[in-house]
Amino acid sequence: MKSKLLLALLSITLTGTAAAQLKPEDAIKFRQSGYTFMAWNMGRIKANVEGQFNKEEVIKSANAIQAIANSGMGALYLPGTDKGTGWEKTRVKPAFFTDKEGVAKVAIAFNKEANEMAKVAATGDAAAIKEQFGKLGAACKACHDDFKIKQ
Amino acid sequence: MKSKLLLALLSITLTGTAAAQLKPEDAIKFRQSGYTFMAWNMGRIKANVEGQFNKEEVIKSANAIQAIANSGMGALYLPGTDKGTGWEKTRVKPAFFTDKEGVAKVAIAFNKEANEMAKVAATGDAAAIKEQFGKLGAACKACHDDFKIKQ
Repeated sequence: MKSKLLLALLSITLTGTAAAQLKPEDAIKFRQSGYTFMAWNMGRIKANVEGQFNKEEVIKSANAIQAIANSGMGALYLPGTDKGTGWEKTRVKPAFFTDKEGVAKVAIAFNKEANEMAKVAATGDAAAIKEQFGKLGAACKACHDDFKIKQ
Repeated sequence: MKSKLLLALLSITLTGTAAAQLKPEDAIKFRQSGYTFMAWNMGRIKANVEGQFNKEEVIKSANAIQAIANSGMGALYLPGTDKGTGWEKTRVKPAFFTDKEGVAKVAIAFNKEANEMAKVAATGDAAAIKEQFGKLGAACKACHDDFKIKQ
Protein backbone atom coordinates (compact mmCIF):
# COMPACT_ATOMS: atom_id res chain seq x y z
CA MET A 1 0.00 0.00 0.00
CA LYS A 2 2.77 2.41 0.89
CA SER A 3 4.60 1.98 -2.40
CA LYS A 4 1.31 2.42 -4.26
CA LEU A 5 0.70 5.70 -2.44
CA LEU A 6 4.26 6.77 -3.13
CA LEU A 7 3.78 6.03 -6.81
CA ALA A 8 0.54 8.01 -6.87
CA LEU A 9 2.17 10.96 -5.15
CA LEU A 10 5.15 10.76 -7.47
CA SER A 11 2.83 10.77 -10.45
CA ILE A 12 1.13 13.94 -9.18
CA THR A 13 4.50 15.54 -8.55
CA LEU A 14 5.73 14.69 -12.02
CA THR A 15 2.67 16.05 -13.78
CA GLY A 16 2.79 19.09 -11.53
CA THR A 17 -0.96 19.38 -11.26
CA ALA A 18 -4.00 17.40 -10.33
CA ALA A 19 -5.59 18.46 -13.62
CA ALA A 20 -3.59 15.83 -15.46
CA GLN A 21 -5.86 13.20 -13.92
CA LEU A 22 -8.96 14.60 -15.65
CA LYS A 23 -10.73 12.70 -18.39
CA PRO A 24 -10.41 14.57 -21.72
CA GLU A 25 -14.20 15.02 -22.01
CA ASP A 26 -14.32 16.55 -18.51
CA ALA A 27 -11.44 18.90 -19.26
CA ILE A 28 -13.28 20.09 -22.39
CA LYS A 29 -16.53 20.48 -20.43
CA PHE A 30 -14.79 22.50 -17.71
CA ARG A 31 -13.15 24.89 -20.15
CA GLN A 32 -16.38 25.34 -22.12
CA SER A 33 -18.09 26.13 -18.81
CA GLY A 34 -15.49 28.74 -17.93
CA TYR A 35 -15.79 30.52 -21.28
CA THR A 36 -19.60 30.33 -21.24
CA PHE A 37 -19.82 31.76 -17.74
CA MET A 38 -17.49 34.58 -18.79
CA ALA A 39 -19.74 35.16 -21.82
CA TRP A 40 -22.73 35.70 -19.50
CA ASN A 41 -20.73 38.25 -17.56
CA MET A 42 -19.47 40.00 -20.70
CA GLY A 43 -23.13 40.24 -21.76
CA ARG A 44 -24.05 41.80 -18.42
CA ILE A 45 -21.30 44.41 -18.64
CA LYS A 46 -22.34 45.16 -22.23
CA ALA A 47 -25.98 45.63 -21.19
CA ASN A 48 -24.89 47.95 -18.41
CA VAL A 49 -22.68 50.17 -20.53
CA GLU A 50 -25.38 50.32 -23.22
CA GLY A 51 -28.39 50.81 -20.95
CA GLN A 52 -29.19 51.23 -17.30
CA PHE A 53 -25.89 51.41 -15.44
CA ASN A 54 -25.75 49.28 -12.29
CA LYS A 55 -22.33 49.59 -10.70
CA GLU A 56 -22.73 46.53 -8.46
CA GLU A 57 -23.69 44.29 -11.38
CA VAL A 58 -20.66 45.47 -13.36
CA ILE A 59 -18.36 44.77 -10.40
CA LYS A 60 -19.76 41.28 -9.85
CA SER A 61 -19.42 40.51 -13.55
CA ALA A 62 -15.89 41.87 -13.84
CA ASN A 63 -14.77 39.99 -10.71
CA ALA A 64 -16.12 36.71 -12.09
CA ILE A 65 -14.31 37.24 -15.40
CA GLN A 66 -11.11 38.17 -13.60
CA ALA A 67 -11.12 35.13 -11.31
CA ILE A 68 -11.87 32.73 -14.17
CA ALA A 69 -9.21 34.37 -16.35
CA ASN A 70 -6.66 33.88 -13.56
CA SER A 71 -7.76 30.36 -12.62
CA GLY A 72 -5.21 28.60 -14.77
CA MET A 73 -7.48 27.24 -17.49
CA GLY A 74 -4.39 26.32 -19.51
CA ALA A 75 -4.34 23.14 -17.41
CA LEU A 76 -7.57 22.13 -19.17
CA TYR A 77 -5.83 21.86 -22.54
CA LEU A 78 -4.45 18.41 -21.83
CA PRO A 79 -2.93 16.21 -24.52
CA GLY A 80 -5.82 14.46 -26.25
CA THR A 81 -8.22 17.38 -25.86
CA ASP A 82 -7.48 18.83 -29.30
CA LYS A 83 -10.50 16.85 -30.46
CA GLY A 84 -13.48 15.57 -28.50
CA THR A 85 -16.74 16.60 -26.93
CA GLY A 86 -17.47 18.21 -23.58
CA TRP A 87 -20.85 19.93 -23.47
CA GLU A 88 -20.43 20.14 -27.24
CA LYS A 89 -17.70 19.39 -29.77
CA THR A 90 -14.58 21.37 -28.94
CA ARG A 91 -13.93 24.31 -31.27
CA VAL A 92 -10.23 24.63 -30.42
CA LYS A 93 -7.96 24.90 -33.47
CA PRO A 94 -4.99 22.49 -33.74
CA ALA A 95 -2.68 25.53 -33.67
CA PHE A 96 -3.51 26.03 -29.98
CA PHE A 97 -1.44 22.93 -29.18
CA THR A 98 1.57 23.83 -31.31
CA ASP A 99 1.87 27.62 -31.31
CA LYS A 100 2.96 28.04 -27.69
CA GLU A 101 4.26 31.54 -28.29
CA GLY A 102 1.05 32.70 -29.98
CA VAL A 103 -1.09 31.22 -27.21
CA ALA A 104 1.04 32.84 -24.51
CA LYS A 105 0.72 36.19 -26.25
CA VAL A 106 -3.09 36.19 -26.40
CA ALA A 107 -3.42 34.63 -22.93
CA ILE A 108 -1.20 37.25 -21.30
CA ALA A 109 -3.05 40.06 -23.10
CA PHE A 110 -6.42 38.63 -22.01
CA ASN A 111 -5.36 38.32 -18.36
CA LYS A 112 -4.04 41.87 -18.39
CA GLU A 113 -7.32 43.28 -19.73
CA ALA A 114 -9.43 41.12 -17.37
CA ASN A 115 -7.46 42.35 -14.36
CA GLU A 116 -7.77 45.93 -15.59
CA MET A 117 -11.52 45.44 -16.15
CA ALA A 118 -12.00 44.46 -12.49
CA LYS A 119 -9.94 47.43 -11.37
CA VAL A 120 -11.86 49.91 -13.54
CA ALA A 121 -15.23 48.37 -12.57
CA ALA A 122 -14.48 49.05 -8.91
CA THR A 123 -14.21 52.77 -9.64
CA GLY A 124 -17.77 52.88 -11.00
CA ASP A 125 -16.67 55.29 -13.76
CA ALA A 126 -19.13 54.40 -16.54
CA ALA A 127 -17.10 55.94 -19.36
CA ALA A 128 -13.87 54.23 -18.27
CA ILE A 129 -15.76 50.93 -17.86
CA LYS A 130 -17.11 51.23 -21.40
CA GLU A 131 -13.62 51.88 -22.76
CA GLN A 132 -12.05 48.99 -20.84
CA PHE A 133 -14.90 46.69 -21.86
CA GLY A 134 -13.94 47.39 -25.48
CA LYS A 135 -10.32 46.46 -24.78
CA LEU A 136 -11.33 43.28 -22.99
CA GLY A 137 -13.65 42.27 -25.84
CA ALA A 138 -10.81 42.84 -28.30
CA ALA A 139 -8.57 40.55 -26.22
CA CYS A 140 -11.25 37.82 -26.30
CA LYS A 141 -11.57 38.24 -30.06
CA ALA A 142 -7.81 38.06 -30.68
CA CYS A 143 -7.76 34.54 -29.21
CA HIS A 144 -10.96 33.49 -30.98
CA ASP A 145 -9.56 34.69 -34.32
CA ASP A 146 -6.40 32.63 -33.98
CA PHE A 147 -7.46 29.61 -31.96
CA LYS A 148 -11.26 29.05 -32.11
CA ILE A 149 -13.04 27.44 -35.03
CA LYS A 150 -15.84 29.64 -36.38
CA GLN A 151 -19.34 28.20 -36.37
CA MET B 1 -37.15 55.54 -32.56
CA LYS B 2 -36.86 57.62 -29.43
CA SER B 3 -40.02 56.23 -27.84
CA LYS B 4 -38.85 52.70 -28.70
CA LEU B 5 -35.57 53.35 -26.91
CA LEU B 6 -37.43 54.83 -23.96
CA LEU B 7 -39.63 51.75 -23.74
CA ALA B 8 -36.59 49.49 -23.89
CA LEU B 9 -34.87 51.47 -21.14
CA LEU B 10 -38.02 51.48 -19.05
CA SER B 11 -38.29 47.74 -19.45
CA ILE B 12 -34.71 47.32 -18.18
CA THR B 13 -35.43 49.63 -15.25
CA LEU B 14 -38.57 47.76 -14.31
CA THR B 15 -36.95 44.34 -14.42
CA GLY B 16 -33.98 45.72 -12.53
CA THR B 17 -31.45 43.68 -14.43
CA ALA B 18 -30.32 42.93 -17.93
CA ALA B 19 -30.57 39.22 -17.13
CA ALA B 20 -34.33 39.36 -17.60
CA GLN B 21 -33.72 39.64 -21.32
CA LEU B 22 -32.05 36.25 -21.51
CA LYS B 23 -33.65 33.33 -23.30
CA PRO B 24 -34.57 30.59 -20.79
CA GLU B 25 -32.24 28.06 -22.46
CA ASP B 26 -29.35 30.52 -22.22
CA ALA B 27 -30.06 31.26 -18.56
CA ILE B 28 -30.01 27.51 -17.83
CA LYS B 29 -26.78 27.09 -19.83
CA PHE B 30 -25.11 29.96 -17.96
CA ARG B 31 -26.02 28.63 -14.52
CA GLN B 32 -24.94 25.08 -15.46
CA SER B 33 -21.64 26.57 -16.63
CA GLY B 34 -21.14 28.41 -13.35
CA TYR B 35 -21.77 25.30 -11.25
CA THR B 36 -19.62 23.11 -13.52
CA PHE B 37 -16.72 25.54 -13.41
CA MET B 38 -17.00 25.64 -9.61
CA ALA B 39 -17.00 21.81 -9.62
CA TRP B 40 -13.65 21.79 -11.45
CA ASN B 41 -12.25 24.12 -8.83
CA MET B 42 -13.68 22.10 -5.93
CA GLY B 43 -11.99 19.07 -7.50
CA ARG B 44 -8.68 20.91 -7.63
CA ILE B 45 -8.86 21.97 -3.99
CA LYS B 46 -9.79 18.39 -3.04
CA ALA B 47 -6.82 16.99 -4.98
CA ASN B 48 -4.54 19.48 -3.23
CA VAL B 49 -5.70 18.76 0.29
CA GLU B 50 -5.50 15.01 -0.39
CA GLY B 51 -2.18 14.93 -2.25
CA GLN B 52 0.54 17.29 -3.31
CA PHE B 53 -0.26 20.70 -1.82
CA ASN B 54 0.14 23.60 -4.23
CA LYS B 55 -0.82 26.84 -2.51
CA GLU B 56 -1.13 28.84 -5.73
CA GLU B 57 -3.52 26.31 -7.28
CA VAL B 58 -5.69 26.36 -4.15
CA ILE B 59 -5.81 30.18 -4.19
CA LYS B 60 -6.75 30.33 -7.88
CA SER B 61 -9.46 27.71 -7.35
CA ALA B 62 -10.88 29.37 -4.24
CA ASN B 63 -10.90 32.79 -5.91
CA ALA B 64 -12.83 31.42 -8.91
CA ILE B 65 -15.41 29.79 -6.63
CA GLN B 66 -15.74 32.96 -4.58
CA ALA B 67 -16.25 35.24 -7.58
CA ILE B 68 -18.82 32.91 -9.16
CA ALA B 69 -20.62 32.49 -5.82
CA ASN B 70 -20.87 36.28 -5.53
CA SER B 71 -21.77 36.93 -9.17
CA GLY B 72 -25.51 37.00 -8.58
CA MET B 73 -26.48 33.71 -10.23
CA GLY B 74 -29.95 34.08 -8.72
CA ALA B 75 -30.70 36.27 -11.75
CA LEU B 76 -30.38 33.13 -13.89
CA TYR B 77 -33.43 31.52 -12.26
CA LEU B 78 -35.89 33.42 -14.43
CA PRO B 79 -39.56 32.53 -14.64
CA GLY B 80 -39.84 29.74 -17.18
CA THR B 81 -36.50 28.17 -16.29
CA ASP B 82 -37.98 25.67 -13.84
CA LYS B 83 -38.02 23.27 -16.79
CA GLY B 84 -35.95 23.26 -19.94
CA THR B 85 -32.56 22.42 -21.35
CA GLY B 86 -29.32 24.39 -21.33
CA TRP B 87 -26.24 22.20 -21.86
CA GLU B 88 -28.47 19.42 -20.51
CA LYS B 89 -31.92 19.17 -18.95
CA THR B 90 -32.12 21.35 -15.85
CA ARG B 91 -32.06 19.45 -12.58
CA VAL B 92 -33.56 22.25 -10.48
CA LYS B 93 -36.44 21.14 -8.23
CA PRO B 94 -39.75 23.05 -8.42
CA ALA B 95 -39.28 24.00 -4.74
CA PHE B 96 -36.44 26.35 -5.77
CA PHE B 97 -39.05 28.69 -7.27
CA THR B 98 -41.47 28.64 -4.35
CA ASP B 99 -39.40 28.21 -1.19
CA LYS B 100 -37.78 31.68 -1.18
CA GLU B 101 -36.80 31.42 2.47
CA GLY B 102 -35.19 28.01 2.04
CA VAL B 103 -33.28 29.18 -1.03
CA ALA B 104 -32.07 32.32 0.73
CA LYS B 105 -30.85 30.23 3.66
CA VAL B 106 -28.70 27.85 1.57
CA ALA B 107 -27.52 30.66 -0.72
CA ILE B 108 -26.37 32.86 2.17
CA ALA B 109 -24.61 29.90 3.82
CA PHE B 110 -22.88 29.00 0.55
CA ASN B 111 -21.67 32.56 -0.05
CA LYS B 112 -20.35 32.77 3.50
CA GLU B 113 -18.34 29.55 3.14
CA ALA B 114 -17.08 30.50 -0.34
CA ASN B 115 -15.84 33.86 0.96
CA GLU B 116 -14.21 32.14 3.93
CA MET B 117 -12.62 29.56 1.60
CA ALA B 118 -10.88 32.32 -0.38
CA LYS B 119 -9.73 33.96 2.84
CA VAL B 120 -8.34 30.71 4.27
CA ALA B 121 -6.72 29.74 0.94
CA ALA B 122 -4.74 32.99 0.96
CA THR B 123 -3.10 31.98 4.26
CA GLY B 124 -1.69 28.79 2.71
CA ASP B 125 -2.44 26.86 5.93
CA ALA B 126 -3.06 23.35 4.57
CA ALA B 127 -4.92 22.08 7.65
CA ALA B 128 -7.22 25.12 7.80
CA ILE B 129 -7.84 24.83 4.04
CA LYS B 130 -8.84 21.18 4.45
CA GLU B 131 -11.24 22.07 7.24
CA GLN B 132 -12.80 24.98 5.33
CA PHE B 133 -13.06 22.85 2.19
CA GLY B 134 -15.21 20.44 4.21
CA LYS B 135 -17.50 23.27 5.29
CA LEU B 136 -17.79 24.60 1.75
CA GLY B 137 -18.60 21.13 0.40
CA ALA B 138 -21.30 20.77 3.06
CA ALA B 139 -22.82 24.09 1.95
CA CYS B 140 -22.90 22.86 -1.67
CA LYS B 141 -24.54 19.63 -0.55
CA ALA B 142 -27.20 21.38 1.55
CA CYS B 143 -28.49 23.13 -1.58
CA HIS B 144 -28.21 20.00 -3.74
CA ASP B 145 -30.18 17.99 -1.16
CA ASP B 146 -33.05 20.45 -1.13
CA PHE B 147 -33.10 21.89 -4.63
CA LYS B 148 -31.28 19.62 -7.12
CA ILE B 149 -32.81 16.50 -8.62
CA LYS B 150 -30.61 13.44 -8.08
CA GLN B 151 -29.40 11.61 -11.17
